[in-house]
Amino acid sequence: MCELLGMSANIPTDICFSFSGLMVRGGQTAAHKDGFGVTFYEDKGCRTFKDALPSCQSEIAKLIKQYPIKSCCVISHIRQANRGRVSLENTHPFSREMWGRDWTFAHNGQLKGIKLLKLSWYQPVGTTDSEHAFCWLLSRIKDKYPNKAPRDMKTLFRYVDKLAAQLNAMGIANFFLSDGRYLYCHCSNNLHWITRRAPFGVATLQDVEMTVDFKQETTPNDVVTVIATKPLTTNEHWHQMQSGESALFNLGELTPL
Amino acid sequence: MCELLGMSANIPTDICFSFSGLMVRGGQTAAHKDGFGVTFYEDKGCRTFKDALPSCQSEIAKLIKQYPIKSCCVISHIRQANRGRVSLENTHPFSREMWGRDWTFAHNGQLKGIKLLKLSWYQPVGTTDSEHAFCWLLSRIKDKYPNKAPRDMKTLFRYVDKLAAQLNAMGIANFFLSDGRYLYCHCSNNLHWITRRAPFGVATLQDVEMTVDFKQETTPNDVVTVIATKPLTTNEHWHQMQSGESALFNLGELTPL
Repeated sequence: MCELLGMSANIPTDICFSFSGLMVRGGQTAAHKDGFGVTFYEDKGCRTFKDALPSCQSEIAKLIKQYPIKSCCVISHIRQANRGRVSLENTHPFSREMWGRDWTFAHNGQLKGIKLLKLSWYQPVGTTDSEHAFCWLLSRIKDKYPNKAPRDMKTLFRYVDKLAAQLNAMGIANFFLSDGRYLYCHCSNNLHWITRRAPFGVATLQDVEMTVDFKQETTPNDVVTVIATKPLTTNEHWHQMQSGESALFNLGELTPL
Repeated sequence: MCELLGMSANIPTDICFSFSGLMVRGGQTAAHKDGFGVTFYEDKGCRTFKDALPSCQSEIAKLIKQYPIKSCCVISHIRQANRGRVSLENTHPFSREMWGRDWTFAHNGQLKGIKLLKLSWYQPVGTTDSEHAFCWLLSRIKDKYPNKAPRDMKTLFRYVDKLAAQLNAMGIANFFLSDGRYLYCHCSNNLHWITRRAPFGVATLQDVEMTVDFKQETTPNDVVTVIATKPLTTNEHWHQMQSGESALFNLGELTPL
């Protein structure tokens, strides 16, 4: 199974701490040895760092752990290949431009028969189920809203909920979809989140000996949500998402649909 | 003026040497202080490293100089902003998926009135002339070939030649366009290239004290072309491209249109 990690925050925040916990799962404490990727949004722009090497060996993963890139929205993925060979074009997250914004997607799970679903505006570059699912999602969204996003973005994500239910019926669809402002999370069987806000405390990672005192790293107004396949810390309460449930985050806050 | 650097090779080759020469121009030996980006193609996939910081100060540029990512096609750009603020979304290279391939573009120059040109399939994320020009190029190409590339890619690039002439009439259009196999280069006023093949010799960088003996780094069958705004080495002969001229490279070789 692949591992997902996402972050939504109301102030540019680095993800070094959570990323450190995730990356050791890439071939060290767990068997996710087939590459990793992370997308940081900074204003309207985004940059994606990818490597087809195991994240615990990757020079690029090392840079990300050490170099605090600050972002209000991050999507990350480490891969254990089941469909599609180990290569850069099969490494999540995937991105496409829609309505003049960069949309990003990362997925954990297999989707039976997904490649029978017809695409229109977007075509996959690699051979994974996941990228096909992403291209299908965006194709359907752009078929419905060809020129621009609906005025209320909740209308859009309610439509994504319907599409996600179709994916869910085909297998396992734990996934993130984001335009850099909104982070949409869908759970089939494995997704947890936590929102940290004042008063901040101390957190201890599960996969590596590392503790951070968020009081030292934050201001009282910061709101930061982290979403991950499995809880990354041992001494905090993470919300476990239910099968078929979705959650939309904007600036760190859960945004009811 | 911005600086462009491209590479086309018949075997995955690292660009550390040329990149070292280019990067000092990013705020050290020249005034290109407004960010840099580099795209490496690896098989069908590609990854882009970007930073809005000056390349001579960037942690990410330092990684690229030291970590030999091997690729048959590379596009790089360092920026001196004239249109569009300094930010990630305005940092070249720009990428879009077309026909299930990632297309990448980097540009040097200003294009007067470019934003009056109508777009269809692709919309810019940032505010630069360059990204608008890229979206216009791809929109026109996809209008003409909506479902797939023409069978002979030369047919496509002859069409790009016509579109490039339109851009050239609007100002300065030194640019690269690539799908990872073909590297198309258009010169308005400043572009030079060199093809290195056996017998390989020694090259000395112009901007930094560094010499490389390509004999030690290559095999006799390697063919590597480097294209840059200005020659990067002092002891080799670079072809100077003429105004309005284009050059298409595939696996390191100049490919007549």
